[in-house]
Amino acid sequence: MILPALLTSAGFNIVICVGFFSLYSILRKQPINLKVYFGQRLAQLKPEQKTYYFGQRLVPSAGWLVKAWEASDDDIYRCGGIDGLVFIKMIVFSIRIFSIASVLCIFIVLPVNLFGQAIQERDAEAQMDMFTIRNVQAGSKGLWAHFFALYVVSICAYVLLYIEFKSVARLRLEQVIRFPTKPSHFTVLVRGIPWCPGEAYSDTVSKHFGSYYESSYLAHQMVYRSGTIQRLMMDAEKMYNDLASGQQTSTDGTGTGEGCDTCGDRVNSVKMITAETEIDVKKHKTPKKSDGKDGKDGKDGKEECAAAFVFFRTRYAAMVASKTIQSYDPMLWVIDFAPEPHDVYWENLCLPYRMLWIRKTSVFIGTIIFSVWFLLPTTLVQGLVNLDQLEDTFPFLRGISETKYANIVSGYLPSLVLTCFVLIVPPIMLMFATLEGTVSRSSRKQSACCKCIIFFFWNIFFYNLFTGSWWDRMGKLTVTGLKDMATLLGNLIPGQAPFFMTYIMTTGWASLAYELMQPFVLIINWIYQIVLLRKEGYGDLYTFPYHTEVPRALLFGLLGFTFCILAPLILPFLLVYYFFAYFVYRNQLLNVYITRYNTNGSYWPIAHNAAIFSLIVMQAVASIIFGMKNFGTASTLAFVLIIFTALFNLYCRHKFLPLFNNKAVQDLIEMDRHDEHSGKIDEILPRLLSSYYQFGGFHGNHPTDLLAAEYKTFNSADAGHKM
Amino acid sequence: MILPALLTSAGFNIVICVGFFSLYSILRKQPINLKVYFGQRLAQLKPEQKTYYFGQRLVPSAGWLVKAWEASDDDIYRCGGIDGLVFIKMIVFSIRIFSIASVLCIFIVLPVNLFGQAIQERDAEAQMDMFTIRNVQAGSKGLWAHFFALYVVSICAYVLLYIEFKSVARLRLEQVIRFPTKPSHFTVLVRGIPWCPGEAYSDTVSKHFGSYYESSYLAHQMVYRSGTIQRLMMDAEKMYNDLASGQQTSTDGTGTGEGCDTCGDRVNSVKMITAETEIDVKKHKTPKKSDGKDGKDGKDGKEECAAAFVFFRTRYAAMVASKTIQSYDPMLWVIDFAPEPHDVYWENLCLPYRMLWIRKTSVFIGTIIFSVWFLLPTTLVQGLVNLDQLEDTFPFLRGISETKYANIVSGYLPSLVLTCFVLIVPPIMLMFATLEGTVSRSSRKQSACCKCIIFFFWNIFFYNLFTGSWWDRMGKLTVTGLKDMATLLGNLIPGQAPFFMTYIMTTGWASLAYELMQPFVLIINWIYQIVLLRKEGYGDLYTFPYHTEVPRALLFGLLGFTFCILAPLILPFLLVYYFFAYFVYRNQLLNVYITRYNTNGSYWPIAHNAAIFSLIVMQAVASIIFGMKNFGTASTLAFVLIIFTALFNLYCRHKFLPLFNNKAVQDLIEMDRHDEHSGKIDEILPRLLSSYYQFGGFHGNHPTDLLAAEYKTFNSADAGHKM
Repeated sequence: MILPALLTSAGFNIVICVGFFSLYSILRKQPINLKVYFGQRLAQLKPEQKTYYFGQRLVPSAGWLVKAWEASDDDIYRCGGIDGLVFIKMIVFSIRIFSIASVLCIFIVLPVNLFGQAIQERDAEAQMDMFTIRNVQAGSKGLWAHFFALYVVSICAYVLLYIEFKSVARLRLEQVIRFPTKPSHFTVLVRGIPWCPGEAYSDTVSKHFGSYYESSYLAHQMVYRSGTIQRLMMDAEKMYNDLASGQQTSTDGTGTGEGCDTCGDRVNSVKMITAETEIDVKKHKTPKKSDGKDGKDGKDGKEECAAAFVFFRTRYAAMVASKTIQSYDPMLWVIDFAPEPHDVYWENLCLPYRMLWIRKTSVFIGTIIFSVWFLLPTTLVQGLVNLDQLEDTFPFLRGISETKYANIVSGYLPSLVLTCFVLIVPPIMLMFATLEGTVSRSSRKQSACCKCIIFFFWNIFFYNLFTGSWWDRMGKLTVTGLKDMATLLGNLIPGQAPFFMTYIMTTGWASLAYELMQPFVLIINWIYQIVLLRKEGYGDLYTFPYHTEVPRALLFGLLGFTFCILAPLILPFLLVYYFFAYFVYRNQLLNVYITRYNTNGSYWPIAHNAAIFSLIVMQAVASIIFGMKNFGTASTLAFVLIIFTALFNLYCRHKFLPLFNNKAVQDLIEMDRHDEHSGKIDEILPRLLSSYYQFGGFHGNHPTDLLAAEYKTFNSADAGHKM
Repeated sequence: MILPALLTSAGFNIVICVGFFSLYSILRKQPINLKVYFGQRLAQLKPEQKTYYFGQRLVPSAGWLVKAWEASDDDIYRCGGIDGLVFIKMIVFSIRIFSIASVLCIFIVLPVNLFGQAIQERDAEAQMDMFTIRNVQAGSKGLWAHFFALYVVSICAYVLLYIEFKSVARLRLEQVIRFPTKPSHFTVLVRGIPWCPGEAYSDTVSKHFGSYYESSYLAHQMVYRSGTIQRLMMDAEKMYNDLASGQQTSTDGTGTGEGCDTCGDRVNSVKMITAETEIDVKKHKTPKKSDGKDGKDGKDGKEECAAAFVFFRTRYAAMVASKTIQSYDPMLWVIDFAPEPHDVYWENLCLPYRMLWIRKTSVFIGTIIFSVWFLLPTTLVQGLVNLDQLEDTFPFLRGISETKYANIVSGYLPSLVLTCFVLIVPPIMLMFATLEGTVSRSSRKQSACCKCIIFFFWNIFFYNLFTGSWWDRMGKLTVTGLKDMATLLGNLIPGQAPFFMTYIMTTGWASLAYELMQPFVLIINWIYQIVLLRKEGYGDLYTFPYHTEVPRALLFGLLGFTFCILAPLILPFLLVYYFFAYFVYRNQLLNVYITRYNTNGSYWPIAHNAAIFSLIVMQAVASIIFGMKNFGTASTLAFVLIIFTALFNLYCRHKFLPLFNNKAVQDLIEMDRHDEHSGKIDEILPRLLSSYYQFGGFHGNHPTDLLAAEYKTFNSADAGHKM
């Protein structure tokens, strides 16, 4: 690729982005689009109050940028939860490290590259190479600049990563204390309940926990396999509710999302009152109903699964239960922390635990096959970039590179094709994650996120890197060993920089514009309101698509680390992306997406691993290239840096990772004691029982009979555990 | 290597082995060698009662073989503990699987190989290749025999591995129930106790556990950093004890070894009585002594470390404490299951927990450097095998292969050199494991065992395989890609079979003779008794060297799996080794070694992993070779088998591995309840406090003042936890 093509592409993209951003600033002022662009605010019952004059409404403005900038971390936390904050932390980390890298590389490394003498021919192809390390002569003293930049960038990255990991871990711990009334603190999810002949699962559960956790066991809630009719009825009911009471229903839904804890509490207490009233009614009607066998089977087409939510009196007891194995067979009585009520993925709870590993393995194999299949479009794209090679291979294409639009095609189209193909990946990965049998929505998204990262890193980064290189040189020299292969790679990686610059502009910048505009929802909303004349409009409440956005942000980080020393020209493009991303995502978190569930910051370890991986790639490539340029000392020292990176990673994992899988006993016991003394526990426990209910979603129709039974048990406390 | 050399080597070794075995049967009858060959029996106070006539004593006999054969699993368990039994299970597994493989491969595969036509030249070099798969022509129908054998061996291995893993896991669980009075059940090891200014570590511990584990915390025992003078005094005292009361002391030492539980109990109760008496005495003298601050520092040159043993009232409480993290910093209050008292490696307890990861990493790097350094002797050995190549490379050696002894040298010497070099590896690995900071003797040995396995597999198996191949062909064809490399390997691996046959005979058979004879101890004992005229003789009580013997047995398993399809001639040699091993190790476990500590069967997962690895190597090599021989279907199916092996491994790990890291809540609570009801708990708890004592080893001098304090606390039960 040559400089004009790159510039064409850059210009094109800048115009598109500025256009879209202006368009957005106009569209967001139109009342018709309120549901599309302010879902989060509507959910919090704080819709945009400001009214615009007709003239104002048609003038682009930068108000949203200012608002996104002014929002504090607390605002983000309130709207996007800890995950939203962590995601913004990833962007901020990238801005910081690449700002440092930009200063270093553009002012020190780039001049060294430009004044190098290694590339003699001055044709169009070589124009771009002038800016890369390929132009530096072997053994040149100028390479010390690259070496210096490598060390400074690495060390800054270590410091920043450490600080961020620490702050996220602290944030996560504070989480426990900040939301003491969360039902998940007192609840565990039990799977693999053993089948005792002649006994309902429910009885088995109450017998087991009543016996071994006598002092702390409170009650339990079975998970049911819903019959087809039941499911159809639920769908119909849901649809009716959606259509009839649309807005209120959606608003209710945000109830226990952490972000909006205040209104969450309100909704909860409303629920509580409803439940209690109904319980009272039931009490009078059927006071003698024995409770364990109530929901056994046949009722409403429901059938018990070998899974249940078990409630404890104290947080500590729930934690202890989830950390121990119960019986000699580790496939029975599998206990985990329960997800938050809204986070539960009910469909997967009924899967037999014994079969989960088969699902996981099948999904793993499926993902690999999918990734291999995906090489097809990537190869096609790579072919478009190398028009000359294509012409050589397929003679009938000769003459194409002479045409007027060849530059535009070669600069813009390949990335666009890739982008379109890549759009289908996250939904497929989400489907894979569902098949895997995850029990919560948040972990499903997290699993999809990991899969997407691996997919993007492999299929976009490595494959483009290698096919590009190999396509170029395959005929020219034969690879005769690993050393030659390394040399070849080291020689050709810098040459792929222009392709990835284009990729950042198209996929990166354009994806931000897409994210901001939400064209899909926007158009459907218009159709609803203008064509179908439905006044309430269209606009469901979406949660933030971490599985799409996190991998993208991390992929650009990988590109940045890999090329910052080799081809510093990539850095400005990258910084523009991250600055835009900062504003766009803050705006989206504040205004558009709601937070119904949360991984409690589990995306940070993923980001940390990706950053470590990127650092190692950067250092390995640098080590190879230094070696090739007869610069042995630096090559060895760069290799030492790889070991140091590995050690740093080990240390961070040792120090912070346990905090992501555990809760601290001290905190839990202190909280339990505090609640006990203040009497707050009497408020929390009854509410607990009403929080996990399978058939009702967030529409408020609770299983009053079951609840009544359990609440009764709770009230007749002492003997009651032996349900 | 050619057939005569192999036969020479085999004959030589058979003579040596039979000779040594006969010699052993004579030596073991001499009263002078009693301490060398019957350490275990002496420890159990059941010395060999039988007296032999002078004539009988000089005639070789097979009595020991019969006894080793007749011993039941229970006998082995009583003497060697669960680890001894697991080791015998490894041998039995190998015998079973290689018996099946022998029948299949020798009667089906070997004829196919022999009647193949691929090797045309009939020179000496090719003689051995006639027996391998190299003699089968490409595309021959005979390859179905190999394929059939591959599948049958693999499936039998899965079945056997599954059965054994299950039985070991059950054995391990029964362990908990079988020895209900073990002090380690009630005890946890706490490291990383935070330093509070102005407070002794002991106070911090009692405050923490007194507060958060109020109902179950019993007492604790600090770990002390012993001053130099203290250590010298202890050494002197130990030496004096050794010299003065020699035999009795050693006998006492076996006290709580699980193997001899009956006498263990006896010794324990003796200790108990002593301790209690001394406590009573102390009580009268210093009734008001506050205990937490007693052992703070300066006393006997002792200084507190940030580590302690904490005792609980119930097994369940100890388990819960060890499974939870206590504070926001996972490097503080690190709690693990406590090792058995005799298993504790006191020297490492004082290492600061924060620094352990540095030690682990350094050891890891050290191990790698050591392994690389070790390539030197391996290369030399490989050179000796390929005399012809050596002559080509170094012209001054020309003529050596013509000499008379060249056959013997080429057949026997290389393995002998390797054996000698390999002898130094286990002690070095044990040193590495010590440096790593393991807290128990058993885990130290286990860690050394893992390191040795990796070392042996890499340095002996892979390196010999590859250097042999590469040395042969390096000049003849250039490796031009991964595919060629695979082909090359697949072609040359069968050619290495003769070398490994020799290796089995020399290292394998000879090592068994060495193990049986114990020449080193034998000679020192003679010097003691005959030259120094010390009647009690020499002979310390050794524990079984798992870190030497397990890797060896597993390495031979790897050889067996790899070559059984390719060169079935290796199987008889291997079976002879395993049959001998069966007798020898049973004899040694029954008579020689004592069991002072135990990993509770943790060697089985290691053996399982090694077997899975061996199976994968076998299947991968078979897949490559089938591919080379134009037998695509079988190649693909062999590859499918690799995936199936991985799945099988995943399943086993899922199903059984959790049992190796956890105890079942059900069992523990049942035991606690049983002891509570039967009043047995009042017996167990006081004894508990006297079991972990740092300065005294097994010489019985207990820290009476500390104990008195703690026992007092225990007696004034209710308020007493807040020491």
